[in-house]
Amino acid sequence: MISLQGIFPPLPTAFDSRQALSTDKMQENIRYLSRYDLTGFLVLGSNGELVNLTYQEKCRVYQKCREAIPGDKLMLAGTGHQSTYETIQACQDAARAGADAVLVLNPSYYKGLMDRKALTQHYWAVADASPVPLIIYNMPANSGLDMDADTICELSTHENVIGLKDSGGNMVKMGTIIDRVQGDFQVLAGSAGFLLPGLSLGARGGILALANIAPGLCLDIYRYFMDGHLEAARKEQLNAIPLNTSVTRQWGVPALKEAMDHLGLYGGPPRRPLLPVDSEVQSTLHRLISELDIHL
Amino acid sequence: MISLQGIFPPLPTAFDSRQALSTDKMQENIRYLSRYDLTGFLVLGSNGELVNLTYQEKCRVYQKCREAIPGDKLMLAGTGHQSTYETIQACQDAARAGADAVLVLNPSYYKGLMDRKALTQHYWAVADASPVPLIIYNMPANSGLDMDADTICELSTHENVIGLKDSGGNMVKMGTIIDRVQGDFQVLAGSAGFLLPGLSLGARGGILALANIAPGLCLDIYRYFMDGHLEAARKEQLNAIPLNTSVTRQWGVPALKEAMDHLGLYGGPPRRPLLPVDSEVQSTLHRLISELDIHL
Amino acid sequence: MISLQGIFPPLPTAFDSRQALSTDKMQENIRYLSRYDLTGFLVLGSNGELVNLTYQEKCRVYQKCREAIPGDKLMLAGTGHQSTYETIQACQDAARAGADAVLVLNPSYYKGLMDRKALTQHYWAVADASPVPLIIYNMPANSGLDMDADTICELSTHENVIGLKDSGGNMVKMGTIIDRVQGDFQVLAGSAGFLLPGLSLGARGGILALANIAPGLCLDIYRYFMDGHLEAARKEQLNAIPLNTSVTRQWGVPALKEAMDHLGLYGGPPRRPLLPVDSEVQSTLHRLISELDIHL
Amino acid sequence: MISLQGIFPPLPTAFDSRQALSTDKMQENIRYLSRYDLTGFLVLGSNGELVNLTYQEKCRVYQKCREAIPGDKLMLAGTGHQSTYETIQACQDAARAGADAVLVLNPSYYKGLMDRKALTQHYWAVADASPVPLIIYNMPANSGLDMDADTICELSTHENVIGLKDSGGNMVKMGTIIDRVQGDFQVLAGSAGFLLPGLSLGARGGILALANIAPGLCLDIYRYFMDGHLEAARKEQLNAIPLNTSVTRQWGVPALKEAMDHLGLYGGPPRRPLLPVDSEVQSTLHRLISELDIHL
Repeated sequence: MISLQGIFPPLPTAFDSRQALSTDKMQENIRYLSRYDLTGFLVLGSNGELVNLTYQEKCRVYQKCREAIPGDKLMLAGTGHQSTYETIQACQDAARAGADAVLVLNPSYYKGLMDRKALTQHYWAVADASPVPLIIYNMPANSGLDMDADTICELSTHENVIGLKDSGGNMVKMGTIIDRVQGDFQVLAGSAGFLLPGLSLGARGGILALANIAPGLCLDIYRYFMDGHLEAARKEQLNAIPLNTSVTRQWGVPALKEAMDHLGLYGGPPRRPLLPVDSEVQSTLHRLISELDIHL
Repeated sequence: MISLQGIFPPLPTAFDSRQALSTDKMQENIRYLSRYDLTGFLVLGSNGELVNLTYQEKCRVYQKCREAIPGDKLMLAGTGHQSTYETIQACQDAARAGADAVLVLNPSYYKGLMDRKALTQHYWAVADASPVPLIIYNMPANSGLDMDADTICELSTHENVIGLKDSGGNMVKMGTIIDRVQGDFQVLAGSAGFLLPGLSLGARGGILALANIAPGLCLDIYRYFMDGHLEAARKEQLNAIPLNTSVTRQWGVPALKEAMDHLGLYGGPPRRPLLPVDSEVQSTLHRLISELDIHL
Repeated sequence: MISLQGIFPPLPTAFDSRQALSTDKMQENIRYLSRYDLTGFLVLGSNGELVNLTYQEKCRVYQKCREAIPGDKLMLAGTGHQSTYETIQACQDAARAGADAVLVLNPSYYKGLMDRKALTQHYWAVADASPVPLIIYNMPANSGLDMDADTICELSTHENVIGLKDSGGNMVKMGTIIDRVQGDFQVLAGSAGFLLPGLSLGARGGILALANIAPGLCLDIYRYFMDGHLEAARKEQLNAIPLNTSVTRQWGVPALKEAMDHLGLYGGPPRRPLLPVDSEVQSTLHRLISELDIHL
Repeated sequence: MISLQGIFPPLPTAFDSRQALSTDKMQENIRYLSRYDLTGFLVLGSNGELVNLTYQEKCRVYQKCREAIPGDKLMLAGTGHQSTYETIQACQDAARAGADAVLVLNPSYYKGLMDRKALTQHYWAVADASPVPLIIYNMPANSGLDMDADTICELSTHENVIGLKDSGGNMVKMGTIIDRVQGDFQVLAGSAGFLLPGLSLGARGGILALANIAPGLCLDIYRYFMDGHLEAARKEQLNAIPLNTSVTRQWGVPALKEAMDHLGLYGGPPRRPLLPVDSEVQSTLHRLISELDIHL
């Protein structure tokens, strides 16, 4: 049984100035971030622009990132596609490349038809076929579909389904799920904005965009909480919110990449249709980074 | 400066079998619940069916509840109306009846026009005119309008605006507000479903439908947290979620009233268009109450 | 059986510079607009700021408007409140004042509980008690609740329910309703933005904010369509859209009032929390009016 | 300049009982439907399960369908992907296969970042690179993003952007666009549910799921309208709504396929996660088909 306890950055996918995939730059980022006490890395989540890569590119990312991720750190691989068929294919290719687990976003294009039955059958088939454990990925702000607690709890009974990354931030739902599932189903916060509230309910940690640029701060919130220093955890949690909001809900992946560039990692341009942030957003990001006194 | 620290039940408004207001029954409920270590009571919140009363009935509720609420417990009074004019009038009538503070839901009928400027001018005028301190009430599930952090933070600078009841449950927003406002602006959780996550971010307590039927459980979560017993708090928080969901988001005021009847308080019928719960919901409620071993 | 065939303006409620109700100004507007071939007037719809008046003020508006509305024109009166009780009271007071029919907005505060059963029982009770025929009013942009076709069709079977004003603009729903109800249930478009599409499906006319400032244009669309001059109707419909959008979805009642002032009717200020439009919006409105060459 | 005047069915993509792509079955359907006076066919729209195919399968569908579509009928090809890069690639592959125009759904995964600037740059780059004319595809129910009139009007100025398929059904927006764009920008209704309302505003026709199973009915609405027989058009439009709703918004692609099977075309199973309709839905579909007396 894989333990997901702790903090994971969801790695952005690197593109060069001509929009071509650059796995070299991703490997450099991984090596740099591996000096922190992170549990592992997620490749090809929403921050990894999963949807902006061709299938061949995705396979290359799985392989090249695994080469760079140390053996004592987990590689989680985003493999969700709209069809059950292509999702299974991606799970198998990610496993072949050395992923420790797959993170599967729900299909959502036919929203009106994605009821509990359709979602359950989809995930069940994928979990059956995946050579490595499956983590459910709920990301309503992007997918436009918010998986409900009943569906998630039903899926948690599959032996190959080991956890949930919830990026919706609905704490009542997170509490409902933790209350109802068996003890070894592991819930992870999907954003640093609600890491501490999530931990207070029993989340095991988080997959946090902010951990790409402020791994120390994210680890501090986590450790202070685990050690019972709640007031210190609370202080760091509140500190983390403004920068986190700016690289997630507000300006997203392009802002995260700008912040990485500013801090000496490789951010680079997002792939279109995503556009780089403008200079005003740049200034705000630099100010927020400066206020937190972040140095990698 | 009034301290809102602790737990408040939002009292349901009692109607007899012919839909007539019964302040006697409300007084009985208040007397019973006053034996608990609650900080005070909210009258005419969403659970108090504010919108289902005539203006004259509202004034009677303010007066009769104040008669029954002990002097050492606060009476918060819901006074929000769609117009600034009628909201001010209600604040003055509630203050005259002895309310310690008013809880003001935002106007929302003209959603598209309720931008930051309109809301700020509305609340500013109400806060200027209210003889008692004002608490902002954000309740997007009912009003259809979710007040943003910027607006709330701006309003917090008015000297007569002392706090916020947030029933939206967005922990990132709650954290953002607590991070940005001055230290004496008091945030309260608007539902027991996210009491502990809210406390973990610095909320002072909550105005909780569940506190009408499980005041002990709500107080336990609060006290365990305040005393640093986080694991005990977490356990009670998870325990509280199923019943809380059933009397709030799922089946609402009619379910809360049914639960009160079942526990020996007066619930009675909701006022139409709200309908009493059916027998299947009744059974579920009784089971949930029984599982929590609640006795008043 | 009352015929709703034709065009109705939903009269704005007039306030003086100190926010006090001015029924004199409303009467002047009515007299002026009565020179057009309008079927009647709606008082206290969304454009009439129903929600911004006290109950006493509403009764005065019913009475004073009826005095001014010619006997050969219908007075429809908005009477929807959140409670069944107060809605019935308003229907009776409006009828007593001489309303020919009442326009009843659905209750919406407890959105999650306003299922088909609750809404049907509410409207059934109101229709039973109303001394004059009832028109259902669906206005999802304001109420936050979109009544479905099934509910509306069920309500249409009550003998005192004669029609629907649909402001949602969903033409598939409008077509579904017209297809399923009996032939004498009368559907009215709730905005000039979709008057012609509505007529093409069988709507009888419309209750149109634009008819307060461009009654001639609205009547032209209607008449051209009725006379089979579809291309002329289409041309006028497209012409009407920009100004209509500006006084409805975009800037709402305050813009409608500004346009009325500009054209020589009494607009005056909206009641707070609604704010007057700024000078930039004023200029846009004046330009749009000028482009349409409107003179009253 | 290609004329889009008339009716197009959006062909479902055929899968065999083992979920494998069957272009043979698609060719048979095309041959059968080509006997009707349809302007052409759309391949790989939402009804074509674009998102459920691998990239290689998409290319095969373009080629094989083009082989079967008569030279005097247009082939429109759905080519929208999340990235600008893959969208351009698909436009080029579709053109190479013989598509007359491409239908490009907007990227929507990063909803919060898909503002007017990002969407305009995306479409501009695609229109620059596409060897054949581009039709914008707005499908908010599936994409979760509703492109606004301003963006669409700006895009209409690109010489290679010739039209819009709007499946949102917002007639005010459709009218706004038709009013503002140059006369040769062609708007098509995206559902038979609002074909007649769309035509009344100046739409040139429609791309209609219903045209796969009731091409005669769709053509009747269109022709009656074009010939000025508005009452006959209205009657057929109302008749079309129930079956159309059942194979679109209500039960979607699986229901459309069931109806095709029932009528002697090849429907077959949808690809997972889409599930075949259950027997109750089957019965409803058969009844609706029988009521309309449809025979192919």
